[in-house]
Amino acid sequence: MVDVVRVALLGCGTVGTETARLLLTHTEDLAARVGARVELVGIAERSLDVERDPVIPRELITTDWQELVSRADIVIELIGGVEPARTMILEAMSNGASVVTANKELLGKDGPTLYAAAEAAGVDLYYEAAVGGAIPLIRPVRESLAGDRVTRVLGIVNGTTNYVLDQMATTGEDLALAVKQAQAQGFAEADPTADVEGFDAAAKAAILASLAFHTRVSTAAVHREGITAVTSDDVAWAAETGHVIKLLAVVERTPDTDAGPGGIVARVHPALVPLSHPLAGVRGAFNAVFVEAEAAGPLMFYGQGAGGVPTASAVTGDVVTIARHVVHGSRGPLESRYADLPVLGIADAVTRYQVRLRVADRPGVLAQVAQAFATHGVSIETVRQAAARGQHADLLVVTHAARDAALAATVATLGGLDVVEQVLSVLRVEGA
Amino acid sequence: MVDVVRVALLGCGTVGTETARLLLTHTEDLAARVGARVELVGIAERSLDVERDPVIPRELITTDWQELVSRADIVIELIGGVEPARTMILEAMSNGASVVTANKELLGKDGPTLYAAAEAAGVDLYYEAAVGGAIPLIRPVRESLAGDRVTRVLGIVNGTTNYVLDQMATTGEDLALAVKQAQAQGFAEADPTADVEGFDAAAKAAILASLAFHTRVSTAAVHREGITAVTSDDVAWAAETGHVIKLLAVVERTPDTDAGPGGIVARVHPALVPLSHPLAGVRGAFNAVFVEAEAAGPLMFYGQGAGGVPTASAVTGDVVTIARHVVHGSRGPLESRYADLPVLGIADAVTRYQVRLRVADRPGVLAQVAQAFATHGVSIETVRQAAARGQHADLLVVTHAARDAALAATVATLGGLDVVEQVLSVLRVEGA
Repeated sequence: MVDVVRVALLGCGTVGTETARLLLTHTEDLAARVGARVELVGIAERSLDVERDPVIPRELITTDWQELVSRADIVIELIGGVEPARTMILEAMSNGASVVTANKELLGKDGPTLYAAAEAAGVDLYYEAAVGGAIPLIRPVRESLAGDRVTRVLGIVNGTTNYVLDQMATTGEDLALAVKQAQAQGFAEADPTADVEGFDAAAKAAILASLAFHTRVSTAAVHREGITAVTSDDVAWAAETGHVIKLLAVVERTPDTDAGPGGIVARVHPALVPLSHPLAGVRGAFNAVFVEAEAAGPLMFYGQGAGGVPTASAVTGDVVTIARHVVHGSRGPLESRYADLPVLGIADAVTRYQVRLRVADRPGVLAQVAQAFATHGVSIETVRQAAARGQHADLLVVTHAARDAALAATVATLGGLDVVEQVLSVLRVEGA
Repeated sequence: MVDVVRVALLGCGTVGTETARLLLTHTEDLAARVGARVELVGIAERSLDVERDPVIPRELITTDWQELVSRADIVIELIGGVEPARTMILEAMSNGASVVTANKELLGKDGPTLYAAAEAAGVDLYYEAAVGGAIPLIRPVRESLAGDRVTRVLGIVNGTTNYVLDQMATTGEDLALAVKQAQAQGFAEADPTADVEGFDAAAKAAILASLAFHTRVSTAAVHREGITAVTSDDVAWAAETGHVIKLLAVVERTPDTDAGPGGIVARVHPALVPLSHPLAGVRGAFNAVFVEAEAAGPLMFYGQGAGGVPTASAVTGDVVTIARHVVHGSRGPLESRYADLPVLGIADAVTRYQVRLRVADRPGVLAQVAQAFATHGVSIETVRQAAARGQHADLLVVTHAARDAALAATVATLGGLDVVEQVLSVLRVEGA
């Protein structure tokens, strides 16, 4: 009979501190829920001489992570990044410890290595906190929907960019100013690249796609566009047409057709979302994820996608699950990659588009523009003249669903027309 | 090594048929996800001579449920009601089978008996489909939030009443007509009592409270008010004040105070929800549940709360989880009731109220009305004169948070005042 489950923490930043707080202050609850005492046996940090939250007992801190993981049943990795996190996780597993991690970068880049090590060692790998912070998302997709077929996941998975876009929509500020505001409020890092360029969202998309479609999808296979090209004009036009711009992670199963078998497309990009869609109402740094499955239909999960305290809740939930496994000698789900679907490029994505063009303001222009769409088989839903400026007019064209490759070819053709002065913006339209 | 997991189905109504369809058509997916073949070995029904969906092979149907459960690893109970479902589940467990059920009535009334039998037999008891249909809710509360402390669950858990109230709000129809519409659309039963009187929601509230607070809460301990007293006047006044009326299930942890230790209050009743709250936007037969936890903060889960196909998704997800346990020789979580908190009555609930009164239209009336609230320590937030009708006027009083007992005493005092002609309605205000 196991009467204590030993937990080691690697990294004591914001999430680490809050996780330690939960483990150290909820001891009675955790023991009752697990059926054994859950003991935080140590916290590995690079230096002993850093001022820490008073909840952290000084004697728990060690710089010797190898010694620490050797005496743990569960290792929580909250260091982030690929190395040294990967080395630490692999060593922990080879010592027989299960691992809880929030490391989306490592999972997105090299998840299969971690899964293989977990399988070889007979231990668990859990990572609820890697996507959607406190929101239960990994567990529902990997367990609750295991009897169903997921067709699409569509979500706001990066709080920083959602805050920035929300700020732009609310105040009319441009991107640079909104990013500064986000930094001042603590919602963006000093170097915001990982967020605004969509790297963070792409890693999460890879993780969700892998689980949803039982296929290995790495971050490198995710089409990624950040929000840096989004202008205050785009934001204003979105509002004018009853939309809001969100950075979305979209992973979807494309159907088999006469042209060939379907596959998976995973993409991260800014998109127009109709105001009537529940994702449009997700404000500030919140996250929300739509999951569509054949039998379940549409499901939405909403909550705080980041922050030390909410993320620590997800981490500690995983610790409890694994601790129960330690007590009962059981295991959670392993990697599921049997479907092994082809991962397609952005060219094969099928969605709707809004194209904003500056054209010459004279008769016959619309016919030429419409012909460019028709040539590539892209069907137009609406055209609207956005503004006339002397010799020029701005056109807003919204298409029906079309392949991304066809839309890209259309845009190339449009760019070559004499009557088209400039293609001002191209945005995908989702959630209609 | 287990190479087949045998599943028996008890009951072949709408959910049973759709569950059978998933089990019979997703065989390859299920085998890959479980690591063993999942075989539907039989379906127990009262009669062999009923026309069934062509997906159901005639040879799977049997009237001998005892023989059927004796050769199953997993028994899915979709008969509903207390008996004979309970007898069947207990017999299945004593034969060593794990059980998946969607039976909220039985779980709410006698869950502990089922849990005790599961524990004695060393088998699993899963019931994701009992609350919120397709929405993953049981698993997130019982597993994902196991490292956190849930403080409150607030949700729309009955699709029929949500459809009826939505219909009343949209068309101005009265309750009787809206119920008829719901019946015509297939959203309400011929006898709608279980839904409109709140019995269904109360059972779900009991299940959620038990899980969220690690305490046994039976349906009998849930304060229950249905929607039958909701008038089109109430609905119109809700809209007028920026609210919508929803039938809510609320289970919450009341704080320890100087007056005594806190406990749990579980209640089901119509409530005013501000239009700005995400629950206000839940239309038709959809369900949505807010869960508030100390560390995670607010979480929302949204989706189809009923219907054969969505519910079958939840049932089959549970089957996959248990089938994995059968393959790996492991177990899911057992009953968690260690907290054993006192379950308090409605008198101890603390919330806000909107009281609509018909009063004499003369000077000094408001002072008397306000004094009635003050006498019982209920603080008024706003007063609005709703309509003057000759000698009478209607007052709309919204309070700050107060104990339900204090509000009830206030209403009794108001009823005794000469100047109060009638207390037209009292509605709780939630989600502010």
